Amino acid sequence: MTGLTLAHAEALDAEDPLASFRDLFQLRDGLNYLDGNSLGVMPKATAARMAQAISGEWAEGLITSWLGADWVNAPRRIGDKIGSFLGANAGEVIAADSTSVNIFKALAAAISLNPGRRVLLTETTNFPTDHYIMQGLAGFAGGLEVRAVAPESLVSAIGADVAVVLLTQVHYKSGLIRDMAEVTAKAHEQGALIVWDLSHSAGAIPVDLNGAKADFAVGCGYKYLNGGPGAPAFLFAAQRHQARALPVLSGWFGHAAPFTFEEDYRPSLGIERFLCGTPPVLGLTALECGVDIMVDADMALIREKSVALGELFIALMDELCGDLGFTLISPRDSALRGSQVSYEHPHGYEIVQTLKERDVIGDFRAPDVLRFGLTPLYLRYADVFHAVQAIRQIVTSGEWDKAQYRQRAAVT
Amino acid sequence: MTGLTLAHAEALDAEDPLASFRDLFQLRDGLNYLDGNSLGVMPKATAARMAQAISGEWAEGLITSWLGADWVNAPRRIGDKIGSFLGANAGEVIAADSTSVNIFKALAAAISLNPGRRVLLTETTNFPTDHYIMQGLAGFAGGLEVRAVAPESLVSAIGADVAVVLLTQVHYKSGLIRDMAEVTAKAHEQGALIVWDLSHSAGAIPVDLNGAKADFAVGCGYKYLNGGPGAPAFLFAAQRHQARALPVLSGWFGHAAPFTFEEDYRPSLGIERFLCGTPPVLGLTALECGVDIMVDADMALIREKSVALGELFIALMDELCGDLGFTLISPRDSALRGSQVSYEHPHGYEIVQTLKERDVIGDFRAPDVLRFGLTPLYLRYADVFHAVQAIRQIVTSGEWDKAQYRQRAAVT
Repeated sequence: MTGLTLAHAEALDAEDPLASFRDLFQLRDGLNYLDGNSLGVMPKATAARMAQAISGEWAEGLITSWLGADWVNAPRRIGDKIGSFLGANAGEVIAADSTSVNIFKALAAAISLNPGRRVLLTETTNFPTDHYIMQGLAGFAGGLEVRAVAPESLVSAIGADVAVVLLTQVHYKSGLIRDMAEVTAKAHEQGALIVWDLSHSAGAIPVDLNGAKADFAVGCGYKYLNGGPGAPAFLFAAQRHQARALPVLSGWFGHAAPFTFEEDYRPSLGIERFLCGTPPVLGLTALECGVDIMVDADMALIREKSVALGELFIALMDELCGDLGFTLISPRDSALRGSQVSYEHPHGYEIVQTLKERDVIGDFRAPDVLRFGLTPLYLRYADVFHAVQAIRQIVTSGEWDKAQYRQRAAVT
Repeated sequence: MTGLTLAHAEALDAEDPLASFRDLFQLRDGLNYLDGNSLGVMPKATAARMAQAISGEWAEGLITSWLGADWVNAPRRIGDKIGSFLGANAGEVIAADSTSVNIFKALAAAISLNPGRRVLLTETTNFPTDHYIMQGLAGFAGGLEVRAVAPESLVSAIGADVAVVLLTQVHYKSGLIRDMAEVTAKAHEQGALIVWDLSHSAGAIPVDLNGAKADFAVGCGYKYLNGGPGAPAFLFAAQRHQARALPVLSGWFGHAAPFTFEEDYRPSLGIERFLCGTPPVLGLTALECGVDIMVDADMALIREKSVALGELFIALMDELCGDLGFTLISPRDSALRGSQVSYEHPHGYEIVQTLKERDVIGDFRAPDVLRFGLTPLYLRYADVFHAVQAIRQIVTSGEWDKAQYRQRAAVT
């Protein structure tokens, strides 16, 4: 017997002001999807919109759709929509390329604004691609040094030699939220610029880029924005930096006049200078469907439900699985926790795989982390109840202990 | 009266061994599309395949489709298919990112292999993004110099200071074909590496990358490969270079073990090191539909028909429009001409716009070039006849001289 009953969870669902958003998404019956922070679900509108873009705009309109269907402005139009819930102004965000490519652009731009300095600073445990892009960039440019310090030392490590800090606002494993305004202010005090990776915050928690005086930011289109697998990412550059920041990936779509075919690169004066090649129209079209839903949702309600889902998850884990070897690695304080809860368990991999057999989808992050994403637009309190109940059953029954899971797959 | 009649063109269509391929593409009745070298048409298979990827693999399979639908191997799988008609071996091509981003990767990799040299060489009149990417890269890295020389001086300008040559195999405006084997040999004689831009050759003319001993190549997915607007591009790296060439855009998908979440970048030993961020699954899915058709087509037949279409176009222009102010800027020698014919005309812009009203789609390249792409898989000889007839009628009637075309649009 548990004090927190399914009836309790169902009562919360009955009162949920966001409950109607679930109908906007395609979700299989029986699916309990706690992995929207890895790949978001498909908005129902996406299938029809993509069919129109493919069989109408492309097949019928062909080349004329660059203007006729406004493909040419898609990166800016979608960027402005994304910016609207990130505290950015119109003209400060574009959607294009991958998150990794945008990290490169943002870092290089920040370095171009801070030429006397040579250190790129981040924290150990940051998402690998953040590390890798810094390393590749520094190795190529010469004269730069990547410095990765323990998370608790990050702020104090921002010294007078630091050109740019790259930090993820919500940690991909633990879900710990960094105070964007505070860290940005510390960076600026030291004359450093900052690039915020919003992969786990855009669409998940309230973000106020200009309120925090952020310099650059990048983020992911396929997680909380529900833009589809490998969706285009986005890049924010504060208006005050745009005319001077050099976009090292200087492709033709970032030119001030791409169709005059000049041979000298002359960057657009605005955010478009951070475009590189021809925009990925099909990916952008799918992304816009997800973004449109997010634009319509109230971010304060999203955050409120996200916190409540997290509190319920943790309370149920305490009660049902408290003695089963799980260690909460997300902050218990909801003010410091993003829209996920993560636990360590020595058999984390096997448990996540066994949950999949029951259509409960979480994910695993090496070496031993179970990560559950909380997506308020389509997740129900009852889903959280069923998920934790399934975890308890799998562990107490020993059901997780199967031969096929002892050999870990390359991708989970 | 003309010696070359419609009946002649129709007789050629009746004998065309590639005629049946046209049925694989979605083409509006009445559309005469001579712009497949700007944006290729939609394969009929694409609509259903995309619906499956969106409503099946994504909406139903969600995160499990990375393995279940083999998304994770799409860049390599599609790359191998593309490589099969470019003279590349399996494991030498990947599909990902934009052409511009891949130019950056290929140039940076070549520079990493040739560290004692400082010049990046190309020809003036090359496609703008090739120039721009070189300029952005050199400006950032420091110690490098971009040198653009007249096309006729390119080979003799490859000196002992040249690290890498970037050259487009088929010129985007004129359609002039460069001899890949000969220029590559000249580069290698001087100790330089070469990056070939295949944007106007992949799927258009026979290409033999390994036969020519090419070092790197990039190309476009949305022209002759019919991959859709802004389709992912591709990158070739000769096997002999892969283990040493540094992929400066060092994102997590290029890591030797992306899902072990190591903090130090350790590139894949193979072509996968040239991946950067999460692959654009939807764009790759559409691209694969176009590539699959190209794999099934006989490149010798494609070239044969391409040449015949070009010869017919030029003969008709000579006969019907010889006195109307057009200057052929494509080579008359078909051995030197890619799959397009281009003319200069002082009213080129207005003529291209007026052709659109008749559903004859060519394109315009500043300042005064009319460019007609010849795509043997779906273009008929009769289409060429009707197109040239329309050009004659538009010019002789003065129909092109309209107020709305005097103000040129930003995108044409």
